[in-house]
Amino acid sequence: MSCNFGNDIKLTIFGQSHSEAIGAVIDGLPAGFEIDFEKVAAFMARRAPGQNDLSTPRKEADAVKILSGIVDGKTCGAPICAIIENTNTRSGDYDKLKSVPRPAHSDFAAFMKHNGFNDIRGGGNFSGRLTAPLCFAGAVCMQLLESKGIRIGAHIASIGKTADEKFDAVNVNSADFDKILAKPFPVIDDKQGEYMRKEIYDAKENGDSVGGIIECAVVGMPAGIGDPIFDGLENRISAAVFGIPAVKGIEFGAGFESSRMLGSENNDDFICENGEIRTETNNHGGILGGISSGMPVIFRCAIKPTPSIAKEQKSVNIMSGEAERLVIGGRHDPCIVPRAVPCVEAAAAIVIADYIF
Amino acid sequence: MSCNFGNDIKLTIFGQSHSEAIGAVIDGLPAGFEIDFEKVAAFMARRAPGQNDLSTPRKEADAVKILSGIVDGKTCGAPICAIIENTNTRSGDYDKLKSVPRPAHSDFAAFMKHNGFNDIRGGGNFSGRLTAPLCFAGAVCMQLLESKGIRIGAHIASIGKTADEKFDAVNVNSADFDKILAKPFPVIDDKQGEYMRKEIYDAKENGDSVGGIIECAVVGMPAGIGDPIFDGLENRISAAVFGIPAVKGIEFGAGFESSRMLGSENNDDFICENGEIRTETNNHGGILGGISSGMPVIFRCAIKPTPSIAKEQKSVNIMSGEAERLVIGGRHDPCIVPRAVPCVEAAAAIVIADYIF
Amino acid sequence: MSCNFGNDIKLTIFGQSHSEAIGAVIDGLPAGFEIDFEKVAAFMARRAPGQNDLSTPRKEADAVKILSGIVDGKTCGAPICAIIENTNTRSGDYDKLKSVPRPAHSDFAAFMKHNGFNDIRGGGNFSGRLTAPLCFAGAVCMQLLESKGIRIGAHIASIGKTADEKFDAVNVNSADFDKILAKPFPVIDDKQGEYMRKEIYDAKENGDSVGGIIECAVVGMPAGIGDPIFDGLENRISAAVFGIPAVKGIEFGAGFESSRMLGSENNDDFICENGEIRTETNNHGGILGGISSGMPVIFRCAIKPTPSIAKEQKSVNIMSGEAERLVIGGRHDPCIVPRAVPCVEAAAAIVIADYIF
Amino acid sequence: MSCNFGNDIKLTIFGQSHSEAIGAVIDGLPAGFEIDFEKVAAFMARRAPGQNDLSTPRKEADAVKILSGIVDGKTCGAPICAIIENTNTRSGDYDKLKSVPRPAHSDFAAFMKHNGFNDIRGGGNFSGRLTAPLCFAGAVCMQLLESKGIRIGAHIASIGKTADEKFDAVNVNSADFDKILAKPFPVIDDKQGEYMRKEIYDAKENGDSVGGIIECAVVGMPAGIGDPIFDGLENRISAAVFGIPAVKGIEFGAGFESSRMLGSENNDDFICENGEIRTETNNHGGILGGISSGMPVIFRCAIKPTPSIAKEQKSVNIMSGEAERLVIGGRHDPCIVPRAVPCVEAAAAIVIADYIF
Repeated sequence: MSCNFGNDIKLTIFGQSHSEAIGAVIDGLPAGFEIDFEKVAAFMARRAPGQNDLSTPRKEADAVKILSGIVDGKTCGAPICAIIENTNTRSGDYDKLKSVPRPAHSDFAAFMKHNGFNDIRGGGNFSGRLTAPLCFAGAVCMQLLESKGIRIGAHIASIGKTADEKFDAVNVNSADFDKILAKPFPVIDDKQGEYMRKEIYDAKENGDSVGGIIECAVVGMPAGIGDPIFDGLENRISAAVFGIPAVKGIEFGAGFESSRMLGSENNDDFICENGEIRTETNNHGGILGGISSGMPVIFRCAIKPTPSIAKEQKSVNIMSGEAERLVIGGRHDPCIVPRAVPCVEAAAAIVIADYIF
Repeated sequence: MSCNFGNDIKLTIFGQSHSEAIGAVIDGLPAGFEIDFEKVAAFMARRAPGQNDLSTPRKEADAVKILSGIVDGKTCGAPICAIIENTNTRSGDYDKLKSVPRPAHSDFAAFMKHNGFNDIRGGGNFSGRLTAPLCFAGAVCMQLLESKGIRIGAHIASIGKTADEKFDAVNVNSADFDKILAKPFPVIDDKQGEYMRKEIYDAKENGDSVGGIIECAVVGMPAGIGDPIFDGLENRISAAVFGIPAVKGIEFGAGFESSRMLGSENNDDFICENGEIRTETNNHGGILGGISSGMPVIFRCAIKPTPSIAKEQKSVNIMSGEAERLVIGGRHDPCIVPRAVPCVEAAAAIVIADYIF
Repeated sequence: MSCNFGNDIKLTIFGQSHSEAIGAVIDGLPAGFEIDFEKVAAFMARRAPGQNDLSTPRKEADAVKILSGIVDGKTCGAPICAIIENTNTRSGDYDKLKSVPRPAHSDFAAFMKHNGFNDIRGGGNFSGRLTAPLCFAGAVCMQLLESKGIRIGAHIASIGKTADEKFDAVNVNSADFDKILAKPFPVIDDKQGEYMRKEIYDAKENGDSVGGIIECAVVGMPAGIGDPIFDGLENRISAAVFGIPAVKGIEFGAGFESSRMLGSENNDDFICENGEIRTETNNHGGILGGISSGMPVIFRCAIKPTPSIAKEQKSVNIMSGEAERLVIGGRHDPCIVPRAVPCVEAAAAIVIADYIF
Repeated sequence: MSCNFGNDIKLTIFGQSHSEAIGAVIDGLPAGFEIDFEKVAAFMARRAPGQNDLSTPRKEADAVKILSGIVDGKTCGAPICAIIENTNTRSGDYDKLKSVPRPAHSDFAAFMKHNGFNDIRGGGNFSGRLTAPLCFAGAVCMQLLESKGIRIGAHIASIGKTADEKFDAVNVNSADFDKILAKPFPVIDDKQGEYMRKEIYDAKENGDSVGGIIECAVVGMPAGIGDPIFDGLENRISAAVFGIPAVKGIEFGAGFESSRMLGSENNDDFICENGEIRTETNNHGGILGGISSGMPVIFRCAIKPTPSIAKEQKSVNIMSGEAERLVIGGRHDPCIVPRAVPCVEAAAAIVIADYIF
């Protein structure tokens, strides 16, 4: 079912870009866990728009309102429902789109699925805005994981043709995450970050947009978590990460690069160090046979350029079939990648917490 | 749950490499559908080992035995259970592996998950052999889909550093699949196929292995199939494809390449041709907002090199922590990619049939 | 998972008696369906407290607020989220209960499950109040079913030792439901209804409470809906109906009575009438092998007496183990059965709609 | 899905009465658990036909063959697949039934669902024979539960109009189960057992059949297991028990009787005895708010009389609508209740193990 995810910790996401509210229901959390709501808000702020000159100036009031599941700041075993009211919606902008689908948006596919009854305003429930409840759920799951010594962090691995350093797949750790979190632009190599920002500016100035890659790591992950065949870490993490609009690819460990390697290059030898068995390299991205090896879980996902661009595009009227020239009004993120970083962390947190709790 | 997949058509896979048998249960198939078992066998033969000089000479008797669900050659509404007996198992080869995990195999992770009680013989239920029942289920689902005009085909997109042509994402069709099926080595460009075969030979001669990429297309797909957020085509196809051992990455449409593109390059304009609305290009891989657009669904997945290589590797004894030099006996596929081609088609077929029926 | 139900139409219920709000998320509804919200409100009013002299005088403002899923009064394919704010909560009443569990309430079991972190106020998420979102979802599903000619109706089959007539299992129809709906006390035989009301009054006057049985019928049900083994109508209806607090038993058709019958008495002979095949009697309650036979689906469920009574009861302090005399303050329904009638209809509607849509 | 059950321990059942084999796949069992297969066989023998003069003389060879999941007698973490070959099938007996449905059988409903493609031979996958794999799975789960101190036992509570004593809902224990297991006819009061046997004989002599009630208890159940709303013990146990063909009703604790009681009679007061909190009576059947209270879980289910009787019955030809006189050949159990006793225990074991492991 479209809006549900998880087995033991179950997440339900609802809402449309311009509905009364959007929100999440999270069931299966252990009772008695104290949630730090300031930390939740800080996490969600990383996703919120209007943070800087690269982001859409729309000011969403992403204030989370807890409807259930919390008593005296602690989980009570009942599902948490959290909502975010949609206060800043200008539905007038979207009238024409009902019949003239925007390229690379869900408009046409949604129209075909729902016989035109889909909510077109702001992309309806296909909107990137639905990642706000995802981030709420992820922030909660992350706190649960941190209580078990598991940390999740991500950075921008590339924007357009400019790449950041990769995480050190063997040694990446909590301190690396903290360093990235302290930066306004979440990269490892700030010099590369400057070039990335330039790619975004250039796209913006040209009425265009640009994509990128996000790399995410899970550290402190115990060995033995996961399952083979259909329920492994790769199956579930990918299923969650593709829930973020604009993700078009995912790879674990050496990923696509491993397809170009010899076995003798790609295989990670086992060694024993200080009484702990680990691998010398980490091309397997911390996952063997769908199960965690105890090494950092590493994955990267590809984010396509923002579909909404200022340039004129070609489309057709769904009803009449007539060609149309489409110019998308409003102001949009020229690059969604920076705001997608916490979303990727959130998706990973939801999956890992579901296995662990 | 590890061995189950699907919502309306539900697949359960069981068995280990050296258990009495492996098999699949498929529930939810429409009753009264006549299955062409010769076609099923032909499909499964594409996955079977020992086909040519590039593949492991082990001769598995992959004869499928139907235990239930079929009456007079037709589905009867009860679940189909199909088994394949494991006749050619030499468990002696695997004794040492219990305590000394093979690099890039599931041995260590499985040991940690199951406290050493996992079936190590032939990789247990982590074995690539489990793709035989997957292919059985896929072959059945494919026949169902063909009855609705939907065809699925795949080819080797690369081996090591040698790449085939890509499918024409806009115009790929049934005839393209038939052409590839008629070839002993499933590529579009036979010249490149020759170079690929050379890469495999070279790896084999060096006691090494090599990976590759498989590209898969679904044609005849109606628009409007799928869901946003957690239950879209990308979420489900990736969840199924990562069920094939050795897959380490997946991308849809332009995938990782789209992360390096501008919006104006990546966006696929809509046009109307002969009364049909379609896109001019197909960077979106036939999926927008998790829902089919009516264009061919295109995805590629990365297959790591076969973990079993003849070269000596480093490992440790799990119990003692002592370093060990490991030489894996037996004869293994120097490249699993050719045999994985039908597995990828099967995974896609299972997902699409689950949506359609 | 506790708060989720359904396969194709998926219901998620959240909230506690004294949380900010309670609510439901319904996913999988067909798009473009116009919901008659006045009819929804009328349905929910049948469950609301304070309707008459037999019911608790607490006045809950059961106004439903739609947060998502509806555009211009019609479903848009996105999940509906509906909430009901909890405005009339007096948490002070419940302070002592945290450590001294009320007999026949969930207090003790919930304490044991959640290590005392459960929300004790008003019964938390174990409260009968959670049937309000259930009724909302049921009312929506009922309208969907009515669009396909399926009607669901229920009546009080007994209160304490006083029994109403049973539905005519063969001929029960829509008009029977309308007659019952027009009455302030939902019974077939009003004379018996008077005696039932007397049983409730007597219990109330004695500071006691009383239980009863509700009989429910589904008419217009097409033959061939359901599944054998684990996913039949009986499996799913019972799983949903036990979601209503206080239900302690369920039977289909002749139910427990059939256990006392001979096969020749219980078997329903097939006949053909006006070209339609049906059974002459309906001891099978419209379900054979988990699948609808086309005859009315009939089931009855047993509702225990309201656990909250004014009489002094024995309990213990969970922490100290010391015996306590417990007197439950506040005013409670001496009999929950009349208000449970629409809840039972709602549970049935959710199940049947899940099969049909 | 029809053939699947469970969340953490997942059971898949397949096969038809006259298919090559029937069987079960059980996934999610902890690895390293040693299964006592003789005990499994002894458990399954209680369900097998042909045991005594009251049961059908058909001799099924219910030998279980393990295809996967067991290494050296222990679970290995991979799914167990167990099959039972169907060796004694006489399909000729069933030819006419395709078009003339047997009263109280699934024939008509299955025909309508599957457009006549259902397997009519022996009832297909609606056959009571499918309870053999259920019992296999139940026997395995029971051994798991016993390792945690949880025991499950059942007895015949009534046959036709003759009733056995009920379990002492407060004090029922393991020794009670052992006593019943030692008897050829599983009742508490052997005198009543004799009368019950007489009811069965009488029915048999008259070419008729008779139903009954089975009472089941779970002892050693820790408090705090289960969930409110849709995933409680009552929801899940009922969903499993209705998977046994011929079950038409279920009640927990005082069940339907509680509907006739006052709150002051039905409520179970809490007391503390030897430092343990328990209830003085057990009308709640060990379940409050869907969660175990620590008291014995008690439920009863109603079994309808065997549909197959020797007496002539009325039916119609589905194709022509013409009336037919039906005489069912072969020899059938005049009462299925004795053989259903282990099936009920098995269903309970599967549910409880799913919660506990």
